[in-house]
Amino acid sequence: MTRTVVESKTKTVVIGFDEPFCVIGERINPTGRKKLAAELEAGDFSTVEKDALEQVACGAMVLDVNAGVVYNSNPNPNETEPPLMTKMINIVQGLVDVPLCIDSSVPGALEAGLAAAEGRPLLNSVTGEEERLELVLPLVKKYNVPVVAISNDDTGISEDPDVRFEVARKIVQRAADFGIPAHDIVVDPLVMPVGAMATAGRQVFTLVKRLREELGCNTTCGASNISFGLPNRHGINAAFLPMAIGAGMTSAIMNPVRSVEMEAIRAANFLMNHDANGGEWIKFSRVLDAVKEGKDFATASAEVAAAGRGGRGGRRARG
Amino acid sequence: MTRTVVESKTKTVVIGFDEPFCVIGERINPTGRKKLAAELEAGDFSTVEKDALEQVACGAMVLDVNAGVVYNSNPNPNETEPPLMTKMINIVQGLVDVPLCIDSSVPGALEAGLAAAEGRPLLNSVTGEEERLELVLPLVKKYNVPVVAISNDDTGISEDPDVRFEVARKIVQRAADFGIPAHDIVVDPLVMPVGAMATAGRQVFTLVKRLREELGCNTTCGASNISFGLPNRHGINAAFLPMAIGAGMTSAIMNPVRSVEMEAIRAANFLMNHDANGGEWIKFSRVLDAVKEGKDFATASAEVAAAGRGGRGGRRARG
Repeated sequence: MTRTVVESKTKTVVIGFDEPFCVIGERINPTGRKKLAAELEAGDFSTVEKDALEQVACGAMVLDVNAGVVYNSNPNPNETEPPLMTKMINIVQGLVDVPLCIDSSVPGALEAGLAAAEGRPLLNSVTGEEERLELVLPLVKKYNVPVVAISNDDTGISEDPDVRFEVARKIVQRAADFGIPAHDIVVDPLVMPVGAMATAGRQVFTLVKRLREELGCNTTCGASNISFGLPNRHGINAAFLPMAIGAGMTSAIMNPVRSVEMEAIRAANFLMNHDANGGEWIKFSRVLDAVKEGKDFATASAEVAAAGRGGRGGRRARG
Repeated sequence: MTRTVVESKTKTVVIGFDEPFCVIGERINPTGRKKLAAELEAGDFSTVEKDALEQVACGAMVLDVNAGVVYNSNPNPNETEPPLMTKMINIVQGLVDVPLCIDSSVPGALEAGLAAAEGRPLLNSVTGEEERLELVLPLVKKYNVPVVAISNDDTGISEDPDVRFEVARKIVQRAADFGIPAHDIVVDPLVMPVGAMATAGRQVFTLVKRLREELGCNTTCGASNISFGLPNRHGINAAFLPMAIGAGMTSAIMNPVRSVEMEAIRAANFLMNHDANGGEWIKFSRVLDAVKEGKDFATASAEVAAAGRGGRGGRRARG
């Protein structure tokens, strides 16, 4: 049974075939968020703090942390990103107790994150590109952490799912050469937009099944990519996630501050028999009730979570 | 490739592995609807007419017609239900051009429906009960129609999915003895409430796959039963339907006048590559936009459908 164990200082999350779907919160990432990038360069971490608290309140089980800011004052991310990663990780793990996912294309930032993170973080990511394999796998081995493996290689992203499967197999084999087991590789089979490629959904469902059965790997994806360019994207996402879960997908890197998608995931957990007695569903339905009454999802989620702790203990959203 | 062909006078609907999910509208049924039952006994068919038009506007591809009223004036349904079935079928097929599903536990009503329906209706239903097999299969053969096969037998409804599978297999074999092919059997594997049976969802997904691969049968279900007794039922239904479709379910008997469930089905069709270029999704998203602006789903659906016909032709909801 494939179990990928990630840990914070105090909390263990298992990504696995017999576990609730693992929601990895994607928001702490300045890519495409100009305002956040400017704040980070200015040393303002208020949005990072808000995103950390909100995502956890809404149900994120792991938080992705990406420090990919290109500073106006210094255009070399190899110099600026590692210390920023350290700073952001310290802030996030000071606020919330979920495991982290250290996300960077800068090797120095990955290593800075690994050094700063408590517990057993997830590393994001390695690909099938030779240079990347040689840089990242030694870090995975040295720090004994699991890693996200994205199924593209030096030839790019193939539209052929069989090619993407073979890239994943290559990464798993190369990892094995380093002594890294398949259960520590979380494969992202790459989700194409269904508006551009009609087979995009079916490709993912087939790939997830093969990655699980043939390679024994857990899987993840950037779920919202499936609906890119389409109207009413949430509706597509909210059908895609249960279908992917039914096919065997075990995690996604996504925005958890979205009621529709989180409702779909919690219902799918229940239907997969990963929610004993529907306890999580019944708790979540109190959040849905509050949202129907006009409350925003993050606030409703934080309030239901606080009530569940009897208003004591834990860490709460401020103000 | 399993294809179950149902027809009205002018329209063909194929239930099949490579077809969009077939939504069978359940509303024209007095069971549990006291007001409708009283109307029908009084010869008032206005609700039947409204339900027929609304369900088709909302996306029903087939309409179930059930005339199961126990008259206050005559408690013998063997006398009252057959002529009522004839009357209801004539009214419905005079208004809308979709194929019908003739639904009764009274053999005389099934035969009256078969005689009245134009085209090739779906018969609902046979079970594994001996008496039912002997009564219904000859009708299926005589009228050359497909039939819904419910997987319970003289011992009742088993909680063991393997037993339900064997009941389905028995029905398919008995049908074969009558010369009825497996592609004309649409199996209902029976959906249990997940609130009462934690494995209910997984049972259905596994059964649908086996029924398809081992018996070559299309499948249907009373979809909303999955969420019986739970809060926020629509959320459970809207995850269950895409998961069932992903597992291979090809139809459901359900209420199509529900935006959330129909959105989930249309998104799942797109993700299964059963919606060329997303044309149906894009059209449906205009309905969703109108619902967001406060319009009720049935009205919004009828208006978008009418606009698609350029405001001409077809039959429109009145008033």
